[in-house]
Amino acid sequence: MELTVDQIAGLLNGKVKGDGSLRVNRLAKIEEATPGSLSFLSNTKYEPFLYNTKASAVLVGEQFEPKKPYATTLIHVNDPYSALTVLLEAYNNQKLQNKNGVEQPSFMAESAQIGQNGYRGAFSYIGNGCIIGDNVKIYPHVFIGDNVRIGNDSIIYAGVKIYEDTVIGNRCVIHAGSVIGSDGFGFAPQPDGSYRTIPQVGNVIIEDEVSIGANTVIDCATMGSTIIRKGVKLDNLIQIAHNVEIGRNTVMAAQSGVSGSTKIGENCVIAGQVGIIGHLTLANGTKVGAQSGVSKSVTKEGLSLFGSPAFNYKDNLKSLSDFRHLPQLQKRGEDLEKILNLPGMQKQDSRNQE
Amino acid sequence: MELTVDQIAGLLNGKVKGDGSLRVNRLAKIEEATPGSLSFLSNTKYEPFLYNTKASAVLVGEQFEPKKPYATTLIHVNDPYSALTVLLEAYNNQKLQNKNGVEQPSFMAESAQIGQNGYRGAFSYIGNGCIIGDNVKIYPHVFIGDNVRIGNDSIIYAGVKIYEDTVIGNRCVIHAGSVIGSDGFGFAPQPDGSYRTIPQVGNVIIEDEVSIGANTVIDCATMGSTIIRKGVKLDNLIQIAHNVEIGRNTVMAAQSGVSGSTKIGENCVIAGQVGIIGHLTLANGTKVGAQSGVSKSVTKEGLSLFGSPAFNYKDNLKSLSDFRHLPQLQKRGEDLEKILNLPGMQKQDSRNQE
Amino acid sequence: MELTVDQIAGLLNGKVKGDGSLRVNRLAKIEEATPGSLSFLSNTKYEPFLYNTKASAVLVGEQFEPKKPYATTLIHVNDPYSALTVLLEAYNNQKLQNKNGVEQPSFMAESAQIGQNGYRGAFSYIGNGCIIGDNVKIYPHVFIGDNVRIGNDSIIYAGVKIYEDTVIGNRCVIHAGSVIGSDGFGFAPQPDGSYRTIPQVGNVIIEDEVSIGANTVIDCATMGSTIIRKGVKLDNLIQIAHNVEIGRNTVMAAQSGVSGSTKIGENCVIAGQVGIIGHLTLANGTKVGAQSGVSKSVTKEGLSLFGSPAFNYKDNLKSLSDFRHLPQLQKRGEDLEKILNLPGMQKQDSRNQE
Repeated sequence: MELTVDQIAGLLNGKVKGDGSLRVNRLAKIEEATPGSLSFLSNTKYEPFLYNTKASAVLVGEQFEPKKPYATTLIHVNDPYSALTVLLEAYNNQKLQNKNGVEQPSFMAESAQIGQNGYRGAFSYIGNGCIIGDNVKIYPHVFIGDNVRIGNDSIIYAGVKIYEDTVIGNRCVIHAGSVIGSDGFGFAPQPDGSYRTIPQVGNVIIEDEVSIGANTVIDCATMGSTIIRKGVKLDNLIQIAHNVEIGRNTVMAAQSGVSGSTKIGENCVIAGQVGIIGHLTLANGTKVGAQSGVSKSVTKEGLSLFGSPAFNYKDNLKSLSDFRHLPQLQKRGEDLEKILNLPGMQKQDSRNQE
Repeated sequence: MELTVDQIAGLLNGKVKGDGSLRVNRLAKIEEATPGSLSFLSNTKYEPFLYNTKASAVLVGEQFEPKKPYATTLIHVNDPYSALTVLLEAYNNQKLQNKNGVEQPSFMAESAQIGQNGYRGAFSYIGNGCIIGDNVKIYPHVFIGDNVRIGNDSIIYAGVKIYEDTVIGNRCVIHAGSVIGSDGFGFAPQPDGSYRTIPQVGNVIIEDEVSIGANTVIDCATMGSTIIRKGVKLDNLIQIAHNVEIGRNTVMAAQSGVSGSTKIGENCVIAGQVGIIGHLTLANGTKVGAQSGVSKSVTKEGLSLFGSPAFNYKDNLKSLSDFRHLPQLQKRGEDLEKILNLPGMQKQDSRNQE
Repeated sequence: MELTVDQIAGLLNGKVKGDGSLRVNRLAKIEEATPGSLSFLSNTKYEPFLYNTKASAVLVGEQFEPKKPYATTLIHVNDPYSALTVLLEAYNNQKLQNKNGVEQPSFMAESAQIGQNGYRGAFSYIGNGCIIGDNVKIYPHVFIGDNVRIGNDSIIYAGVKIYEDTVIGNRCVIHAGSVIGSDGFGFAPQPDGSYRTIPQVGNVIIEDEVSIGANTVIDCATMGSTIIRKGVKLDNLIQIAHNVEIGRNTVMAAQSGVSGSTKIGENCVIAGQVGIIGHLTLANGTKVGAQSGVSKSVTKEGLSLFGSPAFNYKDNLKSLSDFRHLPQLQKRGEDLEKILNLPGMQKQDSRNQE
């Protein structure tokens, strides 16, 4: 996408100070910009970069007055950061609109239905009985198993694998390499020490406006559905086990995992590398710090947890602070024993794993 | 799969009470069932749901006597849960039997051999010299490198990548996106600070009846083989490094990782997000709690470990319990010092990371 | 690759003692070798295996004198381990050289350019405007989005997904299933509790000689670039968030994750399952132990950190050692209180998560 500075100012209802005929074709941070870039100045902390930037144009506030000479073109707008977001969205939409039609070879079962204005990349696969809405982008190497339903305006990036019977809503985004609907991890121990597979015949339901990162896995339910509610945002490399339910607008950072049948409430914030064991319920608005291990249900809304095992965030920080001083505490205990002339008890060695 | 209630009763050797001509085409929990579903009542705790269920039919025990009116058809069987499992397995087998033949385009090298009654999905790839058994299901986008051997009745789901020389047994299941046989992480530091790649020329051997989840990675050996023994069950997003060996019937939950050359015994149970460092040996029957970090070998069989670093499970729970009370213990120490009129030693700050 | 023992001796400038006409076609450990294998004896600890090995030939030192009868052919070389590495590299190069030409069906946009002597596997996809160098191996099911640049001699294994605008250098290796350039995890909370997607319009830059494991994910920058510097080695299932920069020759083991905008220095060593939070700077030469959680920047070079949260490695080991003895320390405190005839304070229960 290449635009003149005047065209951008027109889109953003801004005023140009400088050469409006310059062409820009990308966005860059003000301190890293090269000629041909558009940049922005929102936080005054970055103002010194303006006077050296190589950007062809910079979005600045309506009232902004430069204090030194500069070598770029200014576009004065109401709110530079919002203006940038508008431009970024326009840029992204433009890129997506370039993806349309059907590339060959691709595979679609005769019994599958697909709406209008979509994109089906080369080597994409759509199985029997699928029903796919309008304006859905299906990138190369996507596998869509039998009887999957996908709503309108969803984007399925390269190499996503969607097992049969999955239901995906409108305006969802699933990033490359994610797997939706693989079998839950269910095995019944047998008397001889081996395991018998418990068939997993449920599915996954993903509601509207859900975003799923790259190489994340969501298992199907044993029976019934694993459910990701409207507006949930999952990062990369996340594990969602069978029969889990994640409430509306909950966000979860990379490499976290949720074990089977756990129900997470709405508007929760789960940081990265968190583990949550199975069959728990987390109340709405629960926050969990990075690398925590949640081993108990949370019934009160809005609590913050931390640690492995996790408990109240602030209490955990206090214990962790004292953990750092444990050798000193140990020493003080020994000093007390000496002062009191008690036989210093032998530090019993429990370190042996066995 | 659509069956009448009478047909199901026939399969399960059960007795129908109600309308045997009703048709059911799916399985559902008794509290979630809709018309057209078959459900089951195994645990009497769920009996109240029977009197409101919308299921078309419900499996109940031979002796079951309803205590209130209900609006479904009952199928009396010896053990409702076992009967359900029989049905689930039949249902799953039916789905798999629908996958057969060869979809086009697909790729198979001339020198590759494949047995009878299998399935090769569109865009599947089979390299030179592969030998694949009977009744193997190879889903779309599966990559099978040169000289791979796969036994009978195995299922390789969409987008699995299997590197050259891998050996896979009979009745194995590998879920979507997993990678088998990628190079082990071996780099030799050079005097200039860079690293030289140590070639990884071994392979991966997966014995019979192994199940591997989605997006899991098993690296090939540097030399020799990384070995996954018969009956092992690995969940999703697991990392198995080069030259690891996992003993028979060991199960490992999602997002766990095993470093290079570690040998895990038989019938071990490794929970989720566990890390096990390299060159260890874990005895048969070892159990490791979630998020633990195992840093020492375990020579005695049947131990339970927990924590990072992991030690005896119960001891760790005791330490963790006291960890929560550390601020109180710290306070008691200070109180003692006051009572004894000792100068309260300054809590030295060792918090600085440096 | 099949060679005679004499040919191998020729390659390695070695001397044969025994039958030089024997043919070998694989490498094996001395204790596991079968006929047709070449093995090596570098560490004298393994010498006893020489006298029973079934290897057809064994590399031994120039001065090596057997002390018992043996049934293999010896190849005397200057340094058996170095000689082995030379052979392994030759073996690997041979395998790669067998991969060349274009398999069909594959997809390359008309506007894409590719150099000489490469390999494009079946079902590989190369988008508009890509510029790919000489001798690049692109395995089956690789997706390369629009305007991607890849240098010479790089290897992209099966099913790697590379988003548009990514830049990859020379002599890079990317293992199967990895995703390069997926959207950063950026969402702005809205007053109604939902999130608005922050468009991610930057890219990923991977410099020369970078190695990336299987199923690893590297997100593109919000603006600007996520940068992986020359010589970095990343293992499997790693998460690199938007705008991260990883310095030259840094190595990172499996399942570690780096949050947004963090800068890691050169020659750092990050063990497995480590988490590093966002917006930090880690000095050159920082070492981080397995499962650690780094929550603060490190300004001094060459430090070792451990724990979650991480602090100085040795201090953490001391605290961990005392953590194991916490129940004893608790008991000693109680004993002191008894001896001093103080009322044993109740251990307040702070275990409740709420």
